[in-house]
Amino acid sequence: MSLELLSLNNPVFKSYTFWSGVLVLKMLAMAMLTAMQRFKTKTFANPEDLMSPKLKVKFDDPNVERVRRAHRNDLENILPFFIIGLLYTLTNPSAFLAINLFRAVGIARVAHTLVYAVVVVPQPARALAFFVALLATVYMALQVVLAAAF
Amino acid sequence: MSLELLSLNNPVFKSYTFWSGVLVLKMLAMAMLTAMQRFKTKTFANPEDLMSPKLKVKFDDPNVERVRRAHRNDLENILPFFIIGLLYTLTNPSAFLAINLFRAVGIARVAHTLVYAVVVVPQPARALAFFVALLATVYMALQVVLAAAF
Amino acid sequence: MSLELLSLNNPVFKSYTFWSGVLVLKMLAMAMLTAMQRFKTKTFANPEDLMSPKLKVKFDDPNVERVRRAHRNDLENILPFFIIGLLYTLTNPSAFLAINLFRAVGIARVAHTLVYAVVVVPQPARALAFFVALLATVYMALQVVLAAAF
Repeated sequence: MSLELLSLNNPVFKSYTFWSGVLVLKMLAMAMLTAMQRFKTKTFANPEDLMSPKLKVKFDDPNVERVRRAHRNDLENILPFFIIGLLYTLTNPSAFLAINLFRAVGIARVAHTLVYAVVVVPQPARALAFFVALLATVYMALQVVLAAAF
Repeated sequence: MSLELLSLNNPVFKSYTFWSGVLVLKMLAMAMLTAMQRFKTKTFANPEDLMSPKLKVKFDDPNVERVRRAHRNDLENILPFFIIGLLYTLTNPSAFLAINLFRAVGIARVAHTLVYAVVVVPQPARALAFFVALLATVYMALQVVLAAAF
Repeated sequence: MSLELLSLNNPVFKSYTFWSGVLVLKMLAMAMLTAMQRFKTKTFANPEDLMSPKLKVKFDDPNVERVRRAHRNDLENILPFFIIGLLYTLTNPSAFLAINLFRAVGIARVAHTLVYAVVVVPQPARALAFFVALLATVYMALQVVLAAAF
């Protein structure tokens, strides 16, 4: 059973694997986005990172902090999705529903980063992206708890 | 073997799945708790989030920061539990011990949030909740390393 | 198939399990490192944590903040590795390559902590450790996405 559930022959697991891979790459790209902003604004948090003796450590550049907030929001939302998506896959859900939930989380979280940290788009763009992914994750978590509770 | 280990027919995996689902829901609830504090204290971190032109971005409200510290503590402790609990399940541990370890982590981390971010309870309440979950996770991690080391 | 892939008889899974266990222990040790710095510098973030009525909450001690930055960097890089390493294992990769990638991530992330938060070593020590682990994780994530995309 779980043999087949965690195989790429299972379309649910295949979709979960695809979107998890995409979201891991997206999250790791945040480090590059932060580094770009740090060099552009010469904002470094550690003395050993300072490029020139004239620079001082700085913690309050708004461009750096914006990327860092977007990154932290990823930690808070994408990382729990990784585990709950895997456990949801192991409950053997409807393929149609599961694939669309994974797709919703994947697309919404990419959109969240774009409107938060790449091009700032007025609200409710970010709130919408945030809630689509959150609600899909909450639904999966409820299904997982129900499947394991009885 | 791992077929059966990751099936809800395995009481260890069932318990792991249940508590992981509960803790994912608990973590996602932190976002709502933060949002409530942000609106109550009118503390917003992004210019595009400001509800009125009279407001300014603010980063130092103690109520918002308290919830954020509790949330970050979740990231630091619950997210590693998710992976180590799964790997520990795959080592085929004693059901009695494993189920009680998962229960200890689940209950201790819910208690940690309650005494940290919902009703502030004097120490050592938070320290106790923190260490119960930490020690259970460390024990599982040691078992996992030992099982894989030889 | 996935039966055997998630068994400790699979040398790839065994290596993944070993290094994941080591990195979970390393991450949990960051909490102890932070606590040590907090007590040494008497820097506490919550009123209920203050040991004496003369102390005030403090958020800007450079030693505490350094450990916290190292810890956050772990969250950003090690936690995504946990899920992508598992999914990469499930793609049934070459054992030689996979085991060396896991080893690279494990050793590089331990080194990252040592040169960042234990003994501060001038750059590019930390950058090197960071990029070795990052590139190995990106490679695995690309393989996972490719395996699931077609």
